[in-house]
Formats: sequence, structure tokens, C-alpha cells
Amino acid sequence: MDIKAYLKEKKALIDAFLESYFLSPLIPRTLRDSMVYSLSAGGKRIRPVLCLASYEACGGKAEDIISYASALEFIHTYSLIHDDLPAMDNDDLRRGKPTNHKVFGEGMAILAGDGLLTEAFYMLANNRQSASIQPAAILKVIREIAIASGIHGMVGGQAQDLLSEDEEPDEETLAFIHRHKTAALITASVRSGGLLAGCSDEQLFRLTGYGENIGLAFQVIDDILDVEGETEVLGKPKGSDEKKKKMTYPKLYGIERSREKAKELINGAIEALGVFDEKAEPLRAIARYLLERKS
Amino acid sequence: MDIKAYLKEKKALIDAFLESYFLSPLIPRTLRDSMVYSLSAGGKRIRPVLCLASYEACGGKAEDIISYASALEFIHTYSLIHDDLPAMDNDDLRRGKPTNHKVFGEGMAILAGDGLLTEAFYMLANNRQSASIQPAAILKVIREIAIASGIHGMVGGQAQDLLSEDEEPDEETLAFIHRHKTAALITASVRSGGLLAGCSDEQLFRLTGYGENIGLAFQVIDDILDVEGETEVLGKPKGSDEKKKKMTYPKLYGIERSREKAKELINGAIEALGVFDEKAEPLRAIARYLLERKS
Repeated sequence: MDIKAYLKEKKALIDAFLESYFLSPLIPRTLRDSMVYSLSAGGKRIRPVLCLASYEACGGKAEDIISYASALEFIHTYSLIHDDLPAMDNDDLRRGKPTNHKVFGEGMAILAGDGLLTEAFYMLANNRQSASIQPAAILKVIREIAIASGIHGMVGGQAQDLLSEDEEPDEETLAFIHRHKTAALITASVRSGGLLAGCSDEQLFRLTGYGENIGLAFQVIDDILDVEGETEVLGKPKGSDEKKKKMTYPKLYGIERSREKAKELINGAIEALGVFDEKAEPLRAIARYLLERKS
Repeated sequence: MDIKAYLKEKKALIDAFLESYFLSPLIPRTLRDSMVYSLSAGGKRIRPVLCLASYEACGGKAEDIISYASALEFIHTYSLIHDDLPAMDNDDLRRGKPTNHKVFGEGMAILAGDGLLTEAFYMLANNRQSASIQPAAILKVIREIAIASGIHGMVGGQAQDLLSEDEEPDEETLAFIHRHKTAALITASVRSGGLLAGCSDEQLFRLTGYGENIGLAFQVIDDILDVEGETEVLGKPKGSDEKKKKMTYPKLYGIERSREKAKELINGAIEALGVFDEKAEPLRAIARYLLERKS
């Protein structure tokens, strides 16, 4: 299959939804501008696309869950805004553009993140697209996403990351940070697609294996790119993790072993999908694509 | 009725729930300490108590919705932590204790707020207490609370507040800020109790009127106390709003007119409850109590 065409098509669905979302004149203008700035900063929409692809793998039609998938991008975007703050990673650039607080100030950046996170839960609780999705399934998805993005997931991982700066990398801590900070929400994105489609327990188990593998692979590849990539492709200065003494896979295992690790994880993800038919081809292709990405 | 005994009893229910909540050893220790620090900083639990009282007014038993009511305190606490940050109101004291970022640092304070907000939605989506509450009603409550605390509510109000610092107070802007920053979540707390109890449209309409009136009164009284109160009772330096050139009711109308305004609002709240029987007595007593509070 043509994975690039698939990704482009699905990204367009998400982008169209995101662009039309903040039309209300009742939100303070600068707050809206600040949220829109980061939402439209050229993200790959990988979490929403995974949710859509997983929904399709279980027999659903992507168009029915665009608002649920987009909520994942709201949460991802909020986490980037807060992570970039001076009190956290203190980054000036994100995807080649000044970070949110550099443009709108720290206070507004904090509020933009808070607003996106809260709105994501509104979107999840507001099913207007498909009557076939049951309220109980939606509550399950909300719990899933709240766990993955909160203290037992992303927020917990970022807290541990903050606490571990300036320390020597240690394997257990590194795994904890990445599993929580990145892999948890990616896994939840994949699982949510399955849950919304009313998948079987066996399918959910397989999707979970797929999600956990690509979630971890995603971070390993990110770390490798930070060492090897170029600033203009990455949109942030190369070696910025090293500068901040962050724990990374290349630092712990070296580049070669990290590359092997990424490959193993991607293969594991594809194997986990064994029981699915050709409707899961996009999920398989996304896994292979991740391994080849340059930014 | 003995409103002080009622408030004490209900506060104890909420406090017991909050205290036992963060027992998981899987959360980074400092993150947990930071959340617990602000949750247990002596709040009056007014939002959860209003939710419980409203649920009771519609015939429910408070014990059945403690986790929903507590989620409101999580959201309120997160908003205080973020509002106190240097990039926002830059407050060093809150309820007589150093603010969260003063103790745990700005990065951890931001994460503690993010964690509390996210966990609140987990709690709302996780109905383990009462089988009589339907998933569709819970989704309605989640939407209600997300709207009241997000860009169309609290976050929007705080953004406008931030944008209006160092400006002359203007009546429309002041009303916008208070309606969004304070009244919205208070109204949502009252309405959520009704929605969870499956109240009638007429009852919900009345509860909304009650909530909007006490929500606005709450802020007017806060502003008056900031001018008149003593630091040791308030837990923050008296006149701190004036110092920051914040818009307040006393600044706009003077103290006397502000006091009248608060009284009118409280009377309006009690009148709105006309259709309710004696089960709404706590709601009426809370309204009267708010007018007499000193901190």
C-alpha cells in the first residue's frame, strides 16, 4: 500500500477538523491564537492517525471518529507547550518555529495548554458523529486516555524526566520515562480506536502489543534523530538532548544498538497484529514507516 | 439548620476521600507530594459540598457521589496552583502556606496542576459508587465540567484576567472575568449534583439560577475581603489585588455598593430555589453562610 498517500489523506481529515474548531468569538482572542498557533505548527498527527487506523482495522469508518482522534492531538499539543516552558525543558524552537511561550508569553502558554487538555475531554464526552458508539464505550475511552496522559502516564513520565535531569542515565529510569512520557499515549491512541469500534478482547490485546512496541520504538528513533538529524529537518537544534544531559537510548546503548532495538520493536509491533486481516495493513505500514522517518 | 455542622460533616467526607486517593507507589514521589500538598492545604471544599447538597436537594444520598464531588476539588486545586505561578498571579502565599511552586519548583507545580486536572476527568469517567447513575448522565456531567473549567469557563476567565492586568477596570470585562473564572465552575458544581440525581428540567433551571447567583456573589465577597480582611485570617496579604492592579468590585463600585450587590445576589440565589422542598435547606443555608464568611 501507499503509506504516504494514506498518511496524507488521514492528516487532511484531522487538519480540517482542527482548523474549523476554534471559531467561537467567545474565547479571549489571544488565548485562541495561542492554541491555534501550536495546533497548526505542522504536527504529523501520528496519534490521531493511529486511532483512525486502529478503528479501521476493527471494521470502522475513519470519518465516524474524527473528533475523538482529534482530541488526542489536543492532548499531545498541550503536552508539547508545557514541556517547552522555561521551568521544564526550556526550548525556544519546536518544529522550526518559536515555541508557544516565546510568542505568547509563559502565562498564556500555560493557559493554552490547560485549555487544550480540558477541551480534549469535552470532545471525548461529546459524541455527535456516530450513534453506534455506546456511552459506556466512550467512558472507557475517557478513562483510557486520562490514565495514559495523567500521573500514571505522560505527566508522571515528564515529572520523572524533570527529576532525573543532570543525573547519569540508568536503564530502569529511562524505560520508565519513555514508557510513561511517550509510549502510554501512543498505546492509548491505538487502543481507543479498537474500543470505539467495539473490538474483541483478543483484538484489544493484540492492539495493545502493537501500541506498546511502536510507542517505545517512537522514542528510541526520536533519540537517534536527535543525535544524527540536522536542525533544518528536525526543527530543533541537533544534540539538544545531550546539551540538557537528558537520558537517551544512544547514550545508554550507543547508536548501533539503539538502531537494532528500534528495529526489533517495529518487528514486534507487526507480529502482534498477526490475527488481523488486510484492514490492518495501514497499521503495519505505519510501523515500517516510523523506522524510516527522518524527522 | 446547623449549617456549620453540615459543612463540617460534608467536608470530612471529601477530605477522607482525598486523603486516601494517592496511595499508588507508581507515581513519582515528588509529583505525588506536590499534588497532596495543595489538595490538603485547608480548602473549604465549597464546590464538592455544593455538588453534594444539590444532589441531596434532588433526592440523592451524598455518599453515592463522593468521587464526582471530589473531582471538582481536584480541578479547583489545579487552577489555584497554576494561577499562583510567577507567570500568572505570582503569589507566594496561599491559605497561609507557601504556594506550590515555592515548595516544589515551577516545573513540578505545572505538572501537579496538569496531573490533578487529568485525574479529575478519570474520576468522573470512573463510576464505581452507584449503579443508578447512567453512562449518558455521566457524559453530560463531564461536558458540563469541561465547559465550565476550560476555554469557555475558568481558563478563558484567567486568560482575560491576565490580558487585563495594568488596565483600568471596566464593568463588562470585570463581569466576563468573574463569570468565567469563578462562577462557571461553581454553577457547574451545583448543576452536576442535579444531573447526577436525574433532576427534572425545571429543577435544573432553578439550580442554574442558584449557582449563577452564588457564583458571582462568591467573587464579590472575595474582593471585599481582599480590601477589608486581615492577612492572618485570609491566608494572603490583604490588598494583594490592589497591589497587582487587578479589577475588583470595590474598585469599580466602592465597598458599600459591592456589599449590597453581594446581598442581592444571595437573595436571588435563595429565591431561585423556590420550587424545592426542605431537602434544599442546606443549599439555602450555604448561600446565607457565604455572605457572612470572613475568609
